Amino acid sequence: MFKATIKGDKLKETVSALTALVDETKLNITEKGITARSVDAANVAMVAMELTQDAFETYAGTEGSIGLNLVKLESALEMVDKEDVVGLELDETSHKLKIEFGGITFTHSLLDPSTLRKEPNIPALNLPIEVSINGLDFKTGLKASEKVADYVRMGMADDTFKISAEGDTDAVDYVIPADRLKVVKAADATSLFSLDYLTKIKKVAEKATDVTLILGKDFPVKIKFPLAEETGTIEYMIAPRVEEQE
Amino acid sequence: MFKATIKGDKLKETVSALTALVDETKLNITEKGITARSVDAANVAMVAMELTQDAFETYAGTEGSIGLNLVKLESALEMVDKEDVVGLELDETSHKLKIEFGGITFTHSLLDPSTLRKEPNIPALNLPIEVSINGLDFKTGLKASEKVADYVRMGMADDTFKISAEGDTDAVDYVIPADRLKVVKAADATSLFSLDYLTKIKKVAEKATDVTLILGKDFPVKIKFPLAEETGTIEYMIAPRVEEQE
Amino acid sequence: MFKATIKGDKLKETVSALTALVDETKLNITEKGITARSVDAANVAMVAMELTQDAFETYAGTEGSIGLNLVKLESALEMVDKEDVVGLELDETSHKLKIEFGGITFTHSLLDPSTLRKEPNIPALNLPIEVSINGLDFKTGLKASEKVADYVRMGMADDTFKISAEGDTDAVDYVIPADRLKVVKAADATSLFSLDYLTKIKKVAEKATDVTLILGKDFPVKIKFPLAEETGTIEYMIAPRVEEQE
Repeated sequence: MFKATIKGDKLKETVSALTALVDETKLNITEKGITARSVDAANVAMVAMELTQDAFETYAGTEGSIGLNLVKLESALEMVDKEDVVGLELDETSHKLKIEFGGITFTHSLLDPSTLRKEPNIPALNLPIEVSINGLDFKTGLKASEKVADYVRMGMADDTFKISAEGDTDAVDYVIPADRLKVVKAADATSLFSLDYLTKIKKVAEKATDVTLILGKDFPVKIKFPLAEETGTIEYMIAPRVEEQE
Repeated sequence: MFKATIKGDKLKETVSALTALVDETKLNITEKGITARSVDAANVAMVAMELTQDAFETYAGTEGSIGLNLVKLESALEMVDKEDVVGLELDETSHKLKIEFGGITFTHSLLDPSTLRKEPNIPALNLPIEVSINGLDFKTGLKASEKVADYVRMGMADDTFKISAEGDTDAVDYVIPADRLKVVKAADATSLFSLDYLTKIKKVAEKATDVTLILGKDFPVKIKFPLAEETGTIEYMIAPRVEEQE
Repeated sequence: MFKATIKGDKLKETVSALTALVDETKLNITEKGITARSVDAANVAMVAMELTQDAFETYAGTEGSIGLNLVKLESALEMVDKEDVVGLELDETSHKLKIEFGGITFTHSLLDPSTLRKEPNIPALNLPIEVSINGLDFKTGLKASEKVADYVRMGMADDTFKISAEGDTDAVDYVIPADRLKVVKAADATSLFSLDYLTKIKKVAEKATDVTLILGKDFPVKIKFPLAEETGTIEYMIAPRVEEQE
């Protein structure tokens, strides 16, 4: 069972955070909220989302799982205004999710969760760097990197956080000084990542005051930030591109 | 003879109302105003436009017909500001229409009216539903329908007006309650229409306070609303898509 | 040696003035400022740019030449805000130009100036018309012309400046009256030009109060206007399209 109402901007932010990486997902419903864990089609990146019942205006749910086509949902939600209250209601008999706002009723056919990619276990990694940066800094560094290359290097050096990219001819460096970092663990180490995923993630992350980055040397990066006015969280893990030795 | 001036926004609205359906049209000029009737290339839809002399700042016309390339006109008028007063003058000797605004003179070569598709007679249909809805309601229902399908169903049920669409997986319903309708004739009946035409019409209709819809069960729909601050009217007729019996 | 700082809007305006015509250029540095002269790939148009040291917040330069990929520079500068102060520094050892703004460092690999097209000598032409018009008039006349044709005719007649275009069916005339002209030399003469170049130039020119046009009958046009709040200038020369005699 699942019947809830939620502000439009919170729902749209949550769906966009998922579509940054995956087109469809299994959504787990409990009495306390909803969660989703998915791996991208290329097996390079994972996402884990959690929204507590505090994210909702009203919430009633019991244990269950449904499959969502996130691309169709995101398209339908384009018509939702920030201040709209969106009604969500699961019809278990017909396998549909009813989405209501501004007089419009969308009826979304659920996917069979057993046909979706298996939910990944996001591994606990003991990595030497854990630091929070402002979402706008994250966005600026990535956007500048896109100007010159398809890959970006992220990590720390000399107590600063560095986002840099090296293209065929031109290069970019964006250095976030120590006084703009919230450091949990610091070390001198960097890893290289495809901008494909990060370009989409930066659009969701730019509103976050604190984007937490956990990384090391040639290791995956974990990117975590709050969703829906801190009533939920999104966490991405992206595999590094390990450079061949020259 | 035709020589007139008209506010930019009224002229642009009128031309857009026609290009929603057809690329070229015969324009009939009388002492009292201008009219046009055209059928679309696929013979599925018709449009009839009337602009009285009250739509114009100044107006002088005598009986005659000219052929217009509406696509070229619409492109030229993109440079017109809402508040511009546009001068229109027919040069019968050279078969040109002179359009002047903001210091620019466009000279439009007229088409030979005898080469254009024959003017249709828009049939008088005795249909069971005649109701007016707000242009924004019309737009919202159609826009939501476009999210899930290429066809839309319109009609009445239980004193409400319904715009709905059913795609391969998802569906949309937009119900306009009785208290937002101006009903002339009511009945429970719906018809199915291609969104191709309606998508373009909704952009012109959204400014109208009252969009009048005349329809029945598996019959054409007539869509009527005022143009140019109620000094003219536009009327569309669109054939239904009759579903095969299962 | 070259080390300077400049306001973002001035640098962007200067680079756009060059990319209107060419993708790469040799940049000449002196103690007093920077200059560039380039011919377009089709050998139909030339551009000469000069920026005095007054354009810069700080300036230090000694005689030298570098090669710039203007397309990459323009893309990098998209992230610059108008009010940003941009740092420029030449590293002669590594053949790179360092561009710094808002915490971002772009490192641009210089082109070898000897591989670039030879700098043209922009000829002194003794042409019968020299007149200044407002950048917005220049833009309006060209934009209207683009609606109907690929070529535009510019010149004077009866003390007015005329921008006109004749397409297959439709035509445009834009007449700038005598009281909006600053005339140095007047004559009745026009020439025909491809809109390809002028379309790009009009975007840079539209901000200029005075766009100076020097032209004659079937001769090239020179288009000159100030850059960077009158601390520099840009000058284009475009070959005419000489019509075949009928």
